Amino acid sequence: MKTLVVVSHPEINNSQTQQFLQEGAKLQDVTWHHVESLQSIDVAKEQKLLFENDRIILQFPLYWYAAPEGLKHWEDQVLTRNFVYGDGDDNLADKEFGIVVSTGMPLTAFRRGGSENFTIDEIMAPYYAIAKRGKMQIMPTFTIAQFQYLTEKGQMQLLIDYQRFLTQEYPDTLTHRQEWFEREFTDRFKNFDGTNCNECETILNTFIQQSEDIEQLKSTIGLIKKGEDE
Amino acid sequence: MKTLVVVSHPEINNSQTQQFLQEGAKLQDVTWHHVESLQSIDVAKEQKLLFENDRIILQFPLYWYAAPEGLKHWEDQVLTRNFVYGDGDDNLADKEFGIVVSTGMPLTAFRRGGSENFTIDEIMAPYYAIAKRGKMQIMPTFTIAQFQYLTEKGQMQLLIDYQRFLTQEYPDTLTHRQEWFEREFTDRFKNFDGTNCNECETILNTFIQQSEDIEQLKSTIGLIKKGEDE
Repeated sequence: MKTLVVVSHPEINNSQTQQFLQEGAKLQDVTWHHVESLQSIDVAKEQKLLFENDRIILQFPLYWYAAPEGLKHWEDQVLTRNFVYGDGDDNLADKEFGIVVSTGMPLTAFRRGGSENFTIDEIMAPYYAIAKRGKMQIMPTFTIAQFQYLTEKGQMQLLIDYQRFLTQEYPDTLTHRQEWFEREFTDRFKNFDGTNCNECETILNTFIQQSEDIEQLKSTIGLIKKGEDE
Repeated sequence: MKTLVVVSHPEINNSQTQQFLQEGAKLQDVTWHHVESLQSIDVAKEQKLLFENDRIILQFPLYWYAAPEGLKHWEDQVLTRNFVYGDGDDNLADKEFGIVVSTGMPLTAFRRGGSENFTIDEIMAPYYAIAKRGKMQIMPTFTIAQFQYLTEKGQMQLLIDYQRFLTQEYPDTLTHRQEWFEREFTDRFKNFDGTNCNECETILNTFIQQSEDIEQLKSTIGLIKKGEDE
């Protein structure tokens, strides 16, 4: 599966959040695509990029309840009617569509009676309307609130969640999560030279053991249910 | 009451709808402000303009479920945090806020199961979130669907509705409507030289007569209700 991250930020080098995410996105089959860095927009090239990827992520900070103007510029140029839905050419159909949005406000602000009064999902309606128009599969919004206040542990958690959002099989089931962790752990430990990570193998073995335990528990529950049904 | 119409359209001279609306907006105390025509954005000047008006209208065609990029550019520059809500300076508070949005799709497309699947109000959430943030009074969205298919009579109706949206007192009650029509009829007839509009005085008199009839009917209903209560 190939993932395209369409990033919009007018001053990306000054954004701690985007710098952090960019490091996290250095994964196999993930393309980081910063729209404000494009000298000019080559519509055919952009459309080809969209077409070649299986998961399209729009990523941006929330500026007045939407992406910065750079993304709208990109949308209005690249998403031609014919490419998205005209003449029966559903070039985006069945691709997965996700949004990674960051905000300096706390998550609790985004609800009725909160200082923003609208939920993140409500505010994201225009983007989900595009995805729906393109017959794409919509993933839940990935919201990063107040990155600057995250502890180091919180940042690590965010990193893993973000990487799963980019590359883990959809939908986010326990099985897909297990598969993702097992694959990623194995891949990453291979690249260590051993001296850097003494505990790695132990962690991996523990993880695999726990996965097996879960499978066994599921099987037991299955048997109990079967017994109840009979 | 002073009204500011902030218009965004990248090719406004080629837009029949916008040309039509621009003619309609030639009213006393209405300022037409086309953002793409600005050479550069003078933030202080734009903020002064907003501050001096009592009703702020955002007007644009729907491009991918939002305004064209020009409006987002204007928003991101002009609506500084401090101007809108920072430091207790609620410079927009209590002003009236309205949206005039045009679309080439029929209105019936904007509902669950319709080809757009989202309502216009859902799609407009980001703008209403700004208005809410600025403690403004929100007017119902003024939607113009498929202008090109309107009959001449339909266009005339649109013109009047649009002019009422710009200048009639809010909310849109029967009394406010009557006041608006009486004022506008009187003002406009004054400017005719008589030869152009033979029926004008008759229309005005008929309208005033009907308004009086309505008042009388209301008063009668009031008496009946009073009788029922006793």
